[in-house]
Amino acid sequence: MLIARIIGDVVATHKAPSHHGRKILVVQPLDLDGSDRGGAVLALDSVDAGIGDRVLLVTEGFSAMTAVGRPDSPIDMAVIGVIDAVHLDD
Amino acid sequence: MLIARIIGDVVATHKAPSHHGRKILVVQPLDLDGSDRGGAVLALDSVDAGIGDRVLLVTEGFSAMTAVGRPDSPIDMAVIGVIDAVHLDD
Amino acid sequence: MLIARIIGDVVATHKAPSHHGRKILVVQPLDLDGSDRGGAVLALDSVDAGIGDRVLLVTEGFSAMTAVGRPDSPIDMAVIGVIDAVHLDD
Amino acid sequence: MLIARIIGDVVATHKAPSHHGRKILVVQPLDLDGSDRGGAVLALDSVDAGIGDRVLLVTEGFSAMTAVGRPDSPIDMAVIGVIDAVHLDD
Amino acid sequence: MLIARIIGDVVATHKAPSHHGRKILVVQPLDLDGSDRGGAVLALDSVDAGIGDRVLLVTEGFSAMTAVGRPDSPIDMAVIGVIDAVHLDD
Repeated sequence: MLIARIIGDVVATHKAPSHHGRKILVVQPLDLDGSDRGGAVLALDSVDAGIGDRVLLVTEGFSAMTAVGRPDSPIDMAVIGVIDAVHLDD
Repeated sequence: MLIARIIGDVVATHKAPSHHGRKILVVQPLDLDGSDRGGAVLALDSVDAGIGDRVLLVTEGFSAMTAVGRPDSPIDMAVIGVIDAVHLDD
Repeated sequence: MLIARIIGDVVATHKAPSHHGRKILVVQPLDLDGSDRGGAVLALDSVDAGIGDRVLLVTEGFSAMTAVGRPDSPIDMAVIGVIDAVHLDD
Repeated sequence: MLIARIIGDVVATHKAPSHHGRKILVVQPLDLDGSDRGGAVLALDSVDAGIGDRVLLVTEGFSAMTAVGRPDSPIDMAVIGVIDAVHLDD
Repeated sequence: MLIARIIGDVVATHKAPSHHGRKILVVQPLDLDGSDRGGAVLALDSVDAGIGDRVLLVTEGFSAMTAVGRPDSPIDMAVIGVIDAVHLDD
């Protein structure tokens, strides 16, 4: 998993049936210092996360499909949790 | 998933039986600002997308196979939706 | 698998049910000389590893789910062993 | 999938039983302009492709295993078609 | 698959049960000219390969698990063959 921040969402009226009723989020993966980690990606929401939330991003298809309870869906990334705190050893 | 634009297609007469009747699209992944994100890739179409369309690209095999309804096919990328709009928080 | 060091953990109260009772570790992948290898990632613990431990990191979803005994969970990385020694041929 | 060119093959007498009778090809992934795209990789042949052929390369394990009809084999890349033409929109 | 050379092994007494009795090899992926290709990784052995051997490296979980005959194990890379020769077209 990666730490990521939700920065937007995508509207796609013509799409796979499995995505109906699911929000497609634009998420920006982050490094531990909060800076951007590569480009933004699209992920399905499974925890009703909102813009600005720092979240747990699963980046593999089989994992992501399971996360949203649709194992036969074309899903390869999902938001599966909202992060409260990151503790680092100093 | 990634945002991508369809820029062409591929003709391959001698190929796996699972690909018969399916269009193989040349798709260019995009960053949020619309610039190219790495090189173009090949993906199977599942939503009858056309040249120039901005689409949802699934980039994992198991997900992609499901997207085109052929779970036992050698498919690792698929176009699964046409994007109407991308909303970013400012 | 990669060699990695545990450098922290993440608290996420609102998350997928499969993650309840499992520690989410912040792990830093390492090169053979002990230097950082890319950015840190988040992985579920399966061997009760602690801060500072040098561990075996599995980086694929299906493998990781199996590692923690939850094959239907949205897990894409897991810590599956604690490294005692690395022997290199000179 | 990626576009790739076959540039050689590998001999390995001591290998997994699943690979017996299958040619292991050395394939060079290509960009759309025909230039090299990263380093060459090894893939199993499923369409009787030959040296110099421009081919469809599947780069994921589950997809690749299916391509060669051996779902329980340790295969992560396969050649699944021979490309006749690539059409790009100008 | 990638071409790789075995350069060492790892000792981990506290690890997933699936790894008991299996050697964890340190393998260095190679380019066609024999130079290093990225950093070294850890892979389970399935062909009794030894230090210095040039081998076939499978880099995907599902493939790797199958290679070592343990489909329910947390394995994401495996050595599945010893390379005798690489033939390149000139």
